[in-house]
Amino acid sequence: MHRAVRPAHPVRAVSLSGAIATVGCVNQAARGALIVFEGGDGAGKSTQVTALAHTLQDAGHTVTCTREPGGTPLAEAVRSLVLDPTNAPVSPATEALLFASARADHVARLIHPALERGEIVLCDRFVDSSAAYQGAGRGLGTAAVRDLNEWALQGLVPHLTVLLDVDRATAESRRRSRGVAADRVESEAAAFHEAVNAAFRDLAELAPSRYLVLDAAAPAEDITRAVLQRVSALVPAPPEAAR
Amino acid sequence: MHRAVRPAHPVRAVSLSGAIATVGCVNQAARGALIVFEGGDGAGKSTQVTALAHTLQDAGHTVTCTREPGGTPLAEAVRSLVLDPTNAPVSPATEALLFASARADHVARLIHPALERGEIVLCDRFVDSSAAYQGAGRGLGTAAVRDLNEWALQGLVPHLTVLLDVDRATAESRRRSRGVAADRVESEAAAFHEAVNAAFRDLAELAPSRYLVLDAAAPAEDITRAVLQRVSALVPAPPEAAR
Repeated sequence: MHRAVRPAHPVRAVSLSGAIATVGCVNQAARGALIVFEGGDGAGKSTQVTALAHTLQDAGHTVTCTREPGGTPLAEAVRSLVLDPTNAPVSPATEALLFASARADHVARLIHPALERGEIVLCDRFVDSSAAYQGAGRGLGTAAVRDLNEWALQGLVPHLTVLLDVDRATAESRRRSRGVAADRVESEAAAFHEAVNAAFRDLAELAPSRYLVLDAAAPAEDITRAVLQRVSALVPAPPEAAR
Repeated sequence: MHRAVRPAHPVRAVSLSGAIATVGCVNQAARGALIVFEGGDGAGKSTQVTALAHTLQDAGHTVTCTREPGGTPLAEAVRSLVLDPTNAPVSPATEALLFASARADHVARLIHPALERGEIVLCDRFVDSSAAYQGAGRGLGTAAVRDLNEWALQGLVPHLTVLLDVDRATAESRRRSRGVAADRVESEAAAFHEAVNAAFRDLAELAPSRYLVLDAAAPAEDITRAVLQRVSALVPAPPEAAR
């Protein structure tokens, strides 16, 4: 099943160039692909987004990289409001509504138009982060938070969600090595993080065909290789590349 | 039915001082009273809020005056984001989520604590404005927007909603006389305002015991008198004032 792919430019081995497969596409109206990276802080999401973006761009794809909360000027402003420690304590319901607001603008003004143009959108965190952090972590319920987020998603479902499953020791070690101060959300207790990580895994189990769950403690290049292998099924070789 | 009440300090005639009646209170946990003023722009809501506040304060009540969207630093920041013309076009769903976010913070951090302290809270616009503007005006559906706002309200229902039903000519004339530039929401077309006003009236008809609907074109002092008469039923004379 696993092909031998060199870490540096593995895309050339798995032929990611060309048209995006519509098989498995759950967004009938959109032409592009939305690939989401989820997992706790320190899971290595941004590293993997960057690696995948470079590979896809080298293969000739138009790639839009974005993140949540944020991604548009309005959503970034909302992100600043909710993450600013001076605004604490924000109630769990307020936090869930604010993140859903930011997502609604992000989907309507950036993600949906990019998909309509046939681009590949890579997003660092998406709706599962809301379900995990506000739903499980803050006790609002993952199903309720997912329902709330239908206001933001308007039917959009990621083509693939890569869950980087991170243990707390790895996450803490990576955060310290980045020299990043803990923001309000990152300062929560160990039990909170355990609930969040369990929720991420539960969400993946609800729709395994749309998830790729990887151990975030593995070497980054191994993770990159596994992601590329799965993405190649979404973004297959066009007829001319198969020669 | 109508008592002769002088406009200047009518409270003394209708005995508004003292304890707040729990009869008709739909928020069992709260001790105060939430009185909301709704209606289109130019209906005279802020004038009536001020008049009622002065009267209640003169009678010895602790009154908190507030407004939506806004009322807390976080909610005011959200208000600025959504009303700023440079952020247009905000999608209807984004707008509904942002206003619900602001309301959630307002309820959790200002309204609910004030009610718990036994205060009378007067609010210029509340959830009916979301149902009318986003639900009816922007086509999201009044019931859907009310459901969304349960995230913000957490079961809170105003004890009384005063709807100042305003025709468009009166609203336009008042706005021009204030010299206020139309913001993005106020610049919408006549059909939008008609849908909004109809929605306000429909909401009042759903729960007539919790509404007072008045013609906003009437003289301000007549409106003040009618509001005071209705409020006196919520805030009755205590035993010592009845002597």
